[in-house]
Amino acid sequence: MMEICMISTTILDNIATHIQEVVLHESTRSKILIGQMNLAHYADIAQLMNSLESEYSVKLFLLLKPEMQISVFYELQTALMRTVLSALNSADKSNLLKNSHADQITDLFDLLSDEELATCLDILHKKDREQVLSLMQFAPDSAGGIMNVDVITLMQNFTVAKSVALLPRLRPRRDLHRNIYVTDEENRLVGLIKLEDLLLKSPETQLRSILRQVPFIAEVDQDQEEIANKMAHYRTVTAPVVNEHNFLLGVITGETLVDVLQREAQEDVHKMAGSYVSQSYFETSSASIILRRGILLVILLLVESLTSVILGSYEATLSAFLVSFIAMLVSTAGNTSGQTSAIIIQGMSSGDINDSNINKILRREFFIGFSLSILLALVAFARVYAYHQFFWGSVVVSLSLGIIVFASVLFGSVLPVLLKKFNIDPAFSAGPFLATIMDILGIFIYCYIAYLILN
Amino acid sequence: MMEICMISTTILDNIATHIQEVVLHESTRSKILIGQMNLAHYADIAQLMNSLESEYSVKLFLLLKPEMQISVFYELQTALMRTVLSALNSADKSNLLKNSHADQITDLFDLLSDEELATCLDILHKKDREQVLSLMQFAPDSAGGIMNVDVITLMQNFTVAKSVALLPRLRPRRDLHRNIYVTDEENRLVGLIKLEDLLLKSPETQLRSILRQVPFIAEVDQDQEEIANKMAHYRTVTAPVVNEHNFLLGVITGETLVDVLQREAQEDVHKMAGSYVSQSYFETSSASIILRRGILLVILLLVESLTSVILGSYEATLSAFLVSFIAMLVSTAGNTSGQTSAIIIQGMSSGDINDSNINKILRREFFIGFSLSILLALVAFARVYAYHQFFWGSVVVSLSLGIIVFASVLFGSVLPVLLKKFNIDPAFSAGPFLATIMDILGIFIYCYIAYLILN
Repeated sequence: MMEICMISTTILDNIATHIQEVVLHESTRSKILIGQMNLAHYADIAQLMNSLESEYSVKLFLLLKPEMQISVFYELQTALMRTVLSALNSADKSNLLKNSHADQITDLFDLLSDEELATCLDILHKKDREQVLSLMQFAPDSAGGIMNVDVITLMQNFTVAKSVALLPRLRPRRDLHRNIYVTDEENRLVGLIKLEDLLLKSPETQLRSILRQVPFIAEVDQDQEEIANKMAHYRTVTAPVVNEHNFLLGVITGETLVDVLQREAQEDVHKMAGSYVSQSYFETSSASIILRRGILLVILLLVESLTSVILGSYEATLSAFLVSFIAMLVSTAGNTSGQTSAIIIQGMSSGDINDSNINKILRREFFIGFSLSILLALVAFARVYAYHQFFWGSVVVSLSLGIIVFASVLFGSVLPVLLKKFNIDPAFSAGPFLATIMDILGIFIYCYIAYLILN
Repeated sequence: MMEICMISTTILDNIATHIQEVVLHESTRSKILIGQMNLAHYADIAQLMNSLESEYSVKLFLLLKPEMQISVFYELQTALMRTVLSALNSADKSNLLKNSHADQITDLFDLLSDEELATCLDILHKKDREQVLSLMQFAPDSAGGIMNVDVITLMQNFTVAKSVALLPRLRPRRDLHRNIYVTDEENRLVGLIKLEDLLLKSPETQLRSILRQVPFIAEVDQDQEEIANKMAHYRTVTAPVVNEHNFLLGVITGETLVDVLQREAQEDVHKMAGSYVSQSYFETSSASIILRRGILLVILLLVESLTSVILGSYEATLSAFLVSFIAMLVSTAGNTSGQTSAIIIQGMSSGDINDSNINKILRREFFIGFSLSILLALVAFARVYAYHQFFWGSVVVSLSLGIIVFASVLFGSVLPVLLKKFNIDPAFSAGPFLATIMDILGIFIYCYIAYLILN
């Protein structure tokens, strides 16, 4: 009786525990474990290899069956891919490249030196080579960069019977999906059929007579985040990619959609916190991360040091009482602007907030901000007056706080919208930059109000 | 010649512009526009209705064809769903409920009062009613709460021919996917077949002989975020849901997966910024949002006011020079801890950071934090000394800054991990809470170092 689901993680934990014995591949246990590993899911094997020392990973990789090598390879981290590739002998390397999809090979080529690239291209057949070279012209985060080109498509003058007869000849080299896109004789997209149509319609039916509408068509240079949001909106898990002449170039698959959604979600969070690096965090060297994050922190530090100039110039106004509330005011401004900007930025990035509703949402945030500023001013007055019994001082602190909170909501909601108008990604370091602007503005408001009321 | 893709957005913009004329439904233009609207994509129609005043949306909804009403209805915002439902006459309401899937009806029931619920249940057939009631026991964000129960499944003793003959009888009431899950006679999951197997295998083949392994099986009470991460990991766009006896209960579809990924990404961002409300932002009243965000801000304000106590008690030490850098130190701490915590929290939530690599990543963050603290301390010293030529003062500021930066990275990376250990969602208000803790700690460090060096 077959196992319904692979119990791969237990096997792989076992391999990780006995990794030195396994890679030697001499003991009986090692042979059993390697045999079992070849039955595990490729994603789990890749995860194991990504967590091991790279010398062990390479040895393990060489012990995999050839078909498994191909599946596992494209799930490895970039650095490990490069190491594995250089460890393969030319027969294995040739096997890997010949059995990969053109779009997989294209992604791989970004990792290679010009020399390695030339060697790899030599291995490929002429047709594959042309396909790979034509794919290399597309930006990696455009439809052209993420589409799958080895997908089964059909022509509208085919009958159902002819289509069914074709399928076994096209597979497994080309992938089959439930939505099969249909073209005319010039390879222009004309619609789609569902896989089940081939089962349920009579054999002599021409595909042109059973075409369905395509809910969403991606243009080849369209950005992947926009495509993913549109596909989610239209509830479709595959989408065809066409060029400006409506020629069908490839298909964005459900797996790619999921991958893009996950990566874009990660990018948004990292960008908003100012910790974004262009590659994955796990694949970037510590030095690049320190440089990238360090530059941002240094810029913010220097801008923020403006607060010291403001505080210095209001030195005479600032009693010890007023000084003691500086950190509280600054912090509340950051918290409030962060709440608002997260909603606006995430909404714009996911497409939930768009031109049709942005004004409604901004008006709503202003109302929320106004209410919050009154609430917080009252609480601050109570807290400060209860502790210090200094009426005008409490007025200065709470009035400043109220104004700062309202300004934070105003900036936190309007700034992302303005940035987007100027085609700057609103997620970029929104959190720290907004907090810094609000700090400077907040300190100024506080000092000025203190000066007006107490002097 | 049919249109390949619906040009629905133009039509809908047109309707939005002439909405008052359209809902009157008297002019020729209105009739043409309504005719065209019924050809648009249901997701676009729902988006239009969600952006209009609700009285117009209800009138537009009533002008839709019955099939379209069902598709559009489940895409509407909660409040609008409720309004539309109460505007339907009993024939339309009955049509809507009878043609909905059991899981759609279950989601709907969360919106109704007990009385309305009873009326709706009355409309359903006995079998549907039982299905709906059994679904209502599952938590909305568990596998049971998001699974689709009206999905075609087959039995292992069926032949390919029998399966093909069954399909037209099961559709369209039940959905067909490319992965068709197969059970034994007791409804226990035994594997899956692909839709194309029914096309390519000979008609007399028994399904039991062509079963494939299921890459991932969800348990009925498993959390939706964990399921989505596993499905993405195993590159599968559908997953079967089973109970503790391995009985097949339903299927999580690709559309649901995409929906969960998008909602969880939004939730993570909102939680991290402390602006999370349990329903969608767009479906929550302003009063609830003000209350929810206000409570958090008030708590943070009161905790943060501890800084005023610390600053007050070091009053004698704090010269005007030292005071002027308080905001800069506090802000840098917030920026640094935000960078680190975003990486750790997002990684844990997406499954990229897990038990197998957390120690490696923490060690890496400590190293990055140490390097950043030295870099920022040097920059701060240069900035402060250049401006003020006060050596020991510059030492106090830069030394404090270095220690605060390192402590921020330490807290920003370790705190999320600790929270997770205690089963608290690490995303919850991580940003503001961390910033507040770091402010208090930072102010204390600053005052104490100033006291040690300058007194």
